[in-house]
Parts: sequence; C-alpha cells; structure tokens
Amino acid sequence: MHKFPVLEIFGPTIQGEGMVVGRKTMFVRTAGCDYSCAWCDSAFTWDGSAKDDIRKMTAEAIYTSLHEKGGDYFDHVTISGGNPALLKHLHELVDLLQEKGCEIALETQGSVWQDWFNAIDDLTISPKPPSSRMSTNWDKLDDIVNRLEHAGRSSHTSLKVVVFNEEDIDFAKMVHKRYPQLAFFLQVGNEDLQETNDQQLAMKLLQQYEWLIDQVMQSSELNHVRVLPQVHALLWGNKRGV
Amino acid sequence: MHKFPVLEIFGPTIQGEGMVVGRKTMFVRTAGCDYSCAWCDSAFTWDGSAKDDIRKMTAEAIYTSLHEKGGDYFDHVTISGGNPALLKHLHELVDLLQEKGCEIALETQGSVWQDWFNAIDDLTISPKPPSSRMSTNWDKLDDIVNRLEHAGRSSHTSLKVVVFNEEDIDFAKMVHKRYPQLAFFLQVGNEDLQETNDQQLAMKLLQQYEWLIDQVMQSSELNHVRVLPQVHALLWGNKRGV
Ligand code: SF4
Ligand code: SF4
Repeated sequence: MHKFPVLEIFGPTIQGEGMVVGRKTMFVRTAGCDYSCAWCDSAFTWDGSAKDDIRKMTAEAIYTSLHEKGGDYFDHVTISGGNPALLKHLHELVDLLQEKGCEIALETQGSVWQDWFNAIDDLTISPKPPSSRMSTNWDKLDDIVNRLEHAGRSSHTSLKVVVFNEEDIDFAKMVHKRYPQLAFFLQVGNEDLQETNDQQLAMKLLQQYEWLIDQVMQSSELNHVRVLPQVHALLWGNKRGV
Repeated sequence: MHKFPVLEIFGPTIQGEGMVVGRKTMFVRTAGCDYSCAWCDSAFTWDGSAKDDIRKMTAEAIYTSLHEKGGDYFDHVTISGGNPALLKHLHELVDLLQEKGCEIALETQGSVWQDWFNAIDDLTISPKPPSSRMSTNWDKLDDIVNRLEHAGRSSHTSLKVVVFNEEDIDFAKMVHKRYPQLAFFLQVGNEDLQETNDQQLAMKLLQQYEWLIDQVMQSSELNHVRVLPQVHALLWGNKRGV
C-alpha cells in the first residue's frame, strides 16, 4: 500500500463548484502542485506554509478517517489539491472508496495524465487562464481529453475555467472551442482571499458573478455553457475546512 | 398549429435552479396552474392578476419572439409556468425548438402526464411539500416516474423539492426514498416574496441555504442528493424577467 500526502479530510459538506455543485460530499485534500497560480486559494498545499501538517496516509487510513468524520452520512468523496493527479498510485484510494460504495469527484488542471482518471465519476479539468500567470501545455491537454474520450468517459468529465477578467473570458472561449464535446463550466474567481467579512465578500462575489453572466450572455461562442458562483465562498467566505 | 397561453419570453439568462443550474438559457413562461401553492413565486400565472398580459401564441410565433430577443446567443430554452404540463399539444413547441438546435428544460409538479415529456432534455419534477398546502397524487406521480423510466429517460429527469421547514425535509426524504433511481435536488424556498432590498434578501437566502445544508448533512437518508440555492433570487431578488 502506498502512502499519500494528505492535508485535510473534512465533511460532510456540499460540493461548491462545477459539474456536481451542491452534491453532498466529503473532502480529501492532497498536498503538492506543479503549478503556482497567482490567485491559488489553496496555496498552503504547495507553498510550504503547511508542510508540517502533511500526513502520509494509506488509502485504508484515509477511508478510516473519512468514516470517523462522516459516519454513514456520505456516499461521495471529492479529492482535491493541490494537484492530486501528481499521485501515480491514487487508484488505490479511488478503488477502495468505490468498493465502499462512494462516488468520486476529482479536480486537476490537466497537466498530467493518470490511467485512474478513467475511474473517476466526476472528473473536472480546469485549465488555468492568463490571470493565473500559468501556461497550459496544449499537447498534454489534447492527449488527456483524447484518452478520456476514447475510453468513453466524456459524460463523466467536464471542463471548468475560473474567470477573473476579460482576457480570461477569451481563454475560456478558446478552450470551449477546442473541446466542444465536453460539458463546459465558467466560474467566478475570488479576488479577495484576505477578506474576513463574509457578508462583504458574498456581496462582491455576487456582483462579479453578475458581471460574468453578462459577459457570457453577450457571446454567441459561449452558448452551450454553464456559469456558476463558487458556492463555498458565498456561504463560508475564506474559511478552510467547510 | 395550436396556440399556447404565454406570459413571459425573456433571456438569454442563466437557469437558476436544479439539474442544469447555471446553464445559459431563454425562458418561456406559460399561464395556468392546477395548483395554488401557498408560497408560489409565480402566482401571477394563475391568480388572474396578469390575465390581460396572456398572449395566445403558436410554436412558430414563440420561436420568432425567442429569436428576436436572443438572436444567436442561445441554444437552450426553459419552459416554465405555471404548470406547462397542462398543455397537451406543447410537443409542437418542443419539436420546433429542437429542430432549431435547442435543448429544452421543463419543470412541472408532476400532477399530469404528457407523452412529450419523453422529448424533454432536462425534465424537473417538483412535488410540493406540506408548506405549500398542496397534496400530491402519488398514484399519478408513480405512473409518471414509471413511464419515464420505461422510456429510458431517467438520466434526463430529476426530482426537486423546495424546502421551507423541517416538515418539508421529512417530505423530501420520503420522495427520495420512493424514487431512488432519479437524481434528487433540494432547494431553499424564498419566504420573502415582497422583499425589495436585494442585498437583504440575498443574505437571508444564504442563511436559509446554510440551515438546509446543515439539515441534509445530518441525515443518512439524504446522502445521494444535491442541495442548491435559488440562484436567480440571490442575484436579482424578486424581480421578474431576469
Ligand atoms: S493548479 Fe490549483 S492548486 Fe495548483 S496552484 Fe493552481 S489553483 Fe492552486
Ligand atoms: S405548482 Fe408551481 S406554478 Fe403552480 S402554484 Fe405551485 S409553485 Fe406556483
């Protein structure tokens, strides 16, 4: 059994983003990322600030911890990061959780392929727009999307682009045009990671959401899309572990 | 060509509820309902207050109006009411819109079957909980769910229960248990239909959403579910036509 670097296990709560927004779920957050997005809202997974909190856990230990926290109150687990796609042997966790009757969601930016992607129930690939200051390896992303498609996984896969500005919207259009076969989500970015007044943050996020909706409504290139807020930030501000 | 009683045609905007929440869509609102829910947020469709605004329109005329308003900026239409399932010949509209390349969402409380349900891309059946003061005809609802299942439409169908109080949560559990094969959504009810301060309403709705999430997290009967806010009310308060 391999050990995985885990930073947070919590829930049950709701999935706040993307293709299964609102779904009752547990969260497992793994440490480590090959990116360093300018606006990363989980920079503690890779910037060293939480490195003493990383626990190396087997799939069995992760399941035990999930069960301790969630009891019989869940049947869905979201694996998030960092970039959990860096973990080559993560199928051990995916297989175990599915044996225990759970569905699995996982989010990755799409920089690395793993064969176990084909087992994920709700796979979100989230290429990072210009505001992140990262650049996408398109050959790699093409390859990932092709592999999923050939394995018949398109209905279990979606693309998500987090949008902070107009340049990001152009990027979103380009991604949607490149992979029209995949469900496509646009999400409001959270610019105020230091804001501690939850109500003020919620109001600002709703304003930005309205701006994003307006932009999408005015574009005929963004018809077959869904536009979502980041529900967790609306509800719980910048708190961790909810 | 039959004529349908239409009260509103607007968009593009986003779908604010249920299985395709966030989806870019146009709205067609039909007049008439066989229910009179205590908290109906579109009572003007059946209480006589807007009867002079009802236009009798053919499918062609509805499409023309959609195209005038939405141009090339949509590929999805939501048919809402009232209860659009009262309209026996509505397949004329569904067929025409699908010929034009649109996907169709439709919401009904599940009191009446129509054969054209089998053509709807995103069909939401929303039985009304005790707080509505309506009572569900379970034989009828069983029959509707069975027909959809036998026609292979389960993946295009979802159940949604709007929740105002604890009694409604018990009702939701019962519905979910009765039809475990269908995707199940719980939605926060809007108690403040007269509130004109959008910001205050949004804050109250977020609080109620948090309450609903708490209730669902504590129930092992509500594991395979999704809990959503009413995004339209969060964004635009009680305004019509957005
Ligand atoms: S890919 Fe995700 S976890 Fe990694 S730096 Fe970017 S936002 Fe953060
Ligand atoms: S079924 Fe819907 S439209 Fe009819 S009264 Fe109830 S909430 Fe209003």
